[in-house]
Amino acid sequence: MQTAWKEYQDQNEKRFLDEMLELLRIPSVSAKSEHKDDMRRCADLVRQRLLDSGCDKAEVMETAGHPVVFGEKIIDPAKPTVLVYGHYDVQPAEPLELWHSGPFEPVIKDGKVFARGSADDKGQFYMHVKALETMVRTNSLETNIKFLIEGEEEVGSPNLGSFVGAHKDLLKADVILISDSSMLSMENPSLDVGVRGLSYIEIEVTGPNRDLHSGTYGGGVGNPITILCKMIASLHDENNHITIPGFYSDVVEATPEERALMGRAPYDETEYKSELGVKELWGEKGYTTNERTGIRPTIEVNGIWGGYTGEGAKTVLPSKATAKISARLVPNQSSHTITEMLLSHLRSIAPASVTVNAFEHHGGEPYMTPIDSKGYQAASKAVQTTFGKVPIPVRGGGSIPICSILERELGTKIIFMGFGLDNDNLHSPNEKYNIENYYKGIETIPYFHRFFAQQ
Amino acid sequence: MQTAWKEYQDQNEKRFLDEMLELLRIPSVSAKSEHKDDMRRCADLVRQRLLDSGCDKAEVMETAGHPVVFGEKIIDPAKPTVLVYGHYDVQPAEPLELWHSGPFEPVIKDGKVFARGSADDKGQFYMHVKALETMVRTNSLETNIKFLIEGEEEVGSPNLGSFVGAHKDLLKADVILISDSSMLSMENPSLDVGVRGLSYIEIEVTGPNRDLHSGTYGGGVGNPITILCKMIASLHDENNHITIPGFYSDVVEATPEERALMGRAPYDETEYKSELGVKELWGEKGYTTNERTGIRPTIEVNGIWGGYTGEGAKTVLPSKATAKISARLVPNQSSHTITEMLLSHLRSIAPASVTVNAFEHHGGEPYMTPIDSKGYQAASKAVQTTFGKVPIPVRGGGSIPICSILERELGTKIIFMGFGLDNDNLHSPNEKYNIENYYKGIETIPYFHRFFAQQ
Repeated sequence: MQTAWKEYQDQNEKRFLDEMLELLRIPSVSAKSEHKDDMRRCADLVRQRLLDSGCDKAEVMETAGHPVVFGEKIIDPAKPTVLVYGHYDVQPAEPLELWHSGPFEPVIKDGKVFARGSADDKGQFYMHVKALETMVRTNSLETNIKFLIEGEEEVGSPNLGSFVGAHKDLLKADVILISDSSMLSMENPSLDVGVRGLSYIEIEVTGPNRDLHSGTYGGGVGNPITILCKMIASLHDENNHITIPGFYSDVVEATPEERALMGRAPYDETEYKSELGVKELWGEKGYTTNERTGIRPTIEVNGIWGGYTGEGAKTVLPSKATAKISARLVPNQSSHTITEMLLSHLRSIAPASVTVNAFEHHGGEPYMTPIDSKGYQAASKAVQTTFGKVPIPVRGGGSIPICSILERELGTKIIFMGFGLDNDNLHSPNEKYNIENYYKGIETIPYFHRFFAQQ
Repeated sequence: MQTAWKEYQDQNEKRFLDEMLELLRIPSVSAKSEHKDDMRRCADLVRQRLLDSGCDKAEVMETAGHPVVFGEKIIDPAKPTVLVYGHYDVQPAEPLELWHSGPFEPVIKDGKVFARGSADDKGQFYMHVKALETMVRTNSLETNIKFLIEGEEEVGSPNLGSFVGAHKDLLKADVILISDSSMLSMENPSLDVGVRGLSYIEIEVTGPNRDLHSGTYGGGVGNPITILCKMIASLHDENNHITIPGFYSDVVEATPEERALMGRAPYDETEYKSELGVKELWGEKGYTTNERTGIRPTIEVNGIWGGYTGEGAKTVLPSKATAKISARLVPNQSSHTITEMLLSHLRSIAPASVTVNAFEHHGGEPYMTPIDSKGYQAASKAVQTTFGKVPIPVRGGGSIPICSILERELGTKIIFMGFGLDNDNLHSPNEKYNIENYYKGIETIPYFHRFFAQQ
């Protein structure tokens, strides 16, 4: 079987890559209304490729926002069913001036595909489409497969919960498989056993009712930029511990055993710093980098703006300053609780010289998957087969808000089998996905289905 | 004489206004290179109007940057000479979406001219051009007049010092008269006896060498926005006193008598707050609003940006954050010293997890003019004649960096005779200049020349 799979993949690898590039050329930016038509175009293409690759049926299904693509290949209702979740939408490409090539004009260089969405998540979910094709064409599919490819992951999946709730039968499965994360390295393969949750808010601080001359009024009227900076500065103490009362109350502290296991994951701080170009790391006192980005909640400012930001100098005391702020959450923090806490804390610390308008963008719950489940064991064996090493279970720092919703609505556990790397520049300029990882994923996925079916 | 002036002005008031509007239609934004041709066009028009209004000669003279317009009317070398300084350049108009009409398409509403530059400074320096015309056409000019109208005031007059130094004879005068400031109100006319100095810098804080995913790296890598916010927040203590060591060292504290005199200027805090739309004022503990904006140095953030500032949400931990920061200075602070202090302080407080690139935009020295000088007395009598009240001497909060340069190079004192109002929205959207103030200025200026000549 292995030989037939690999042979088929080797014969078709050029086309497998070209089809991924075709997807990447569509600027399916879900956050921006100007890309509404591109979203639809991308969904249509995904549907067509699902059909071309062996699905019995595939549909573009409406939601209140961007559509969902559903597809399935049912070989035998008595066999186990794997639901593959992915997303065809991508993050905005800005800042455009930092890209070495067009974000939606994929370029191949040094064995890497550079384009927005290459790793997150078009290149990754498409591995499953090509794995399906491989198994179908070699008559070796041992499970039923369903695809749920959504278009709103990068904006917090606001409509997927109700979509899933309304289509429980259609989506019924024995396991949910997601490739939307990374592994430590090709030499040290890993599987995520958890993702962090998210609370994402925006805060607008207004001082005077108009921009003022900073000479005439400077020193006498509250400057919303200065005040917003003071508010943001107050969110972390001198140990980079978050100061919001109750923020850590629901955190389940990792046990010493878990922390010891995490400490065994390969990590070279010198290399980590050098790769990022920083002289010193930063983070919560008492925790390692892996712990800070995996098992600890955080608050990050994702954007800030106010006043004059153009060329040269303008002596203005601005009317407004705005920031986008998000928190990453760990078990058992609740996104709803933390969002409300963030909003009310920020409102409460604003001085009377300004008014605050703060609101939620979106959120998602943290998620953990059990290492002793059938799904995890099948994934672990699959990776071991193609990489030659038992993968290390790790906690990922990112968020996949839909996880807790999928489990709640479908009663099914989620397995993360990501083939990206941390340096893929997700959400950044020059996002890339290594072609080697793409092919390795397509090679590994069929083993997951085989081992899952045989358990 | 008074009758002849007023009669001439009344007969020509429509044209006086139309000529001001013509100037306002040229987008002479000195900070933006795209307006280079507009700058030249504006200078040419000013030159032409000086000739039309009675100057014997007028020239557009080159500098390393935007040109200077010089003009003069010499009636008798033995008579005193008044040098009028003004500027034909304007601040950038952004944010454009907050203007009720085009910044360079002047609109008249409720007796006010709305346009960028209407009060700062085209409408104000042009009063002097129309006052010249009045005196020339009514054969009543009693002084020589020179005009020095520059094109780089809003970017810190980087080339005017060397221009003035190279043309000392041409610019020789007995007094320098500037209308580039405001008065308390039409009911409470005032004359500025000082302006604050300026140090304007920009600081760019860089963390990682690229934008990062805030989930994968959040909590483990220094966020340049958070760090810049902490740096800015640390510049003021809980009493809004500036914390930079040595910042106040050279400040000449106002005497109790001066402060008592300032306290007599009309000021209604309820009205001040209501006009600005704020519930509470903000400022250095122990000082009144007039003191905070007049005799105390300040630090204001004029602009800030970093990370994702578009629609929706993006979970990025950005590579960079930038701010434009300026200090207003009072006697005897030195702009050069404070600029260096600001730059080195900001560099010194940055943590090792970021690198800082900080540089100067421009600066200017604070300036004070003596109340017992011939020039001040002539201005005070002129205002008293047309307003019916002795003007109150006040300290202005803005900066006219060229003042100390002009005095140093020409050895001549400067008199500020501004006819604007604090609510003219200088440097803000919907800048305006009241037509009543424009005409009142044109009516008042001839008296200055007359009283100055007769002393």
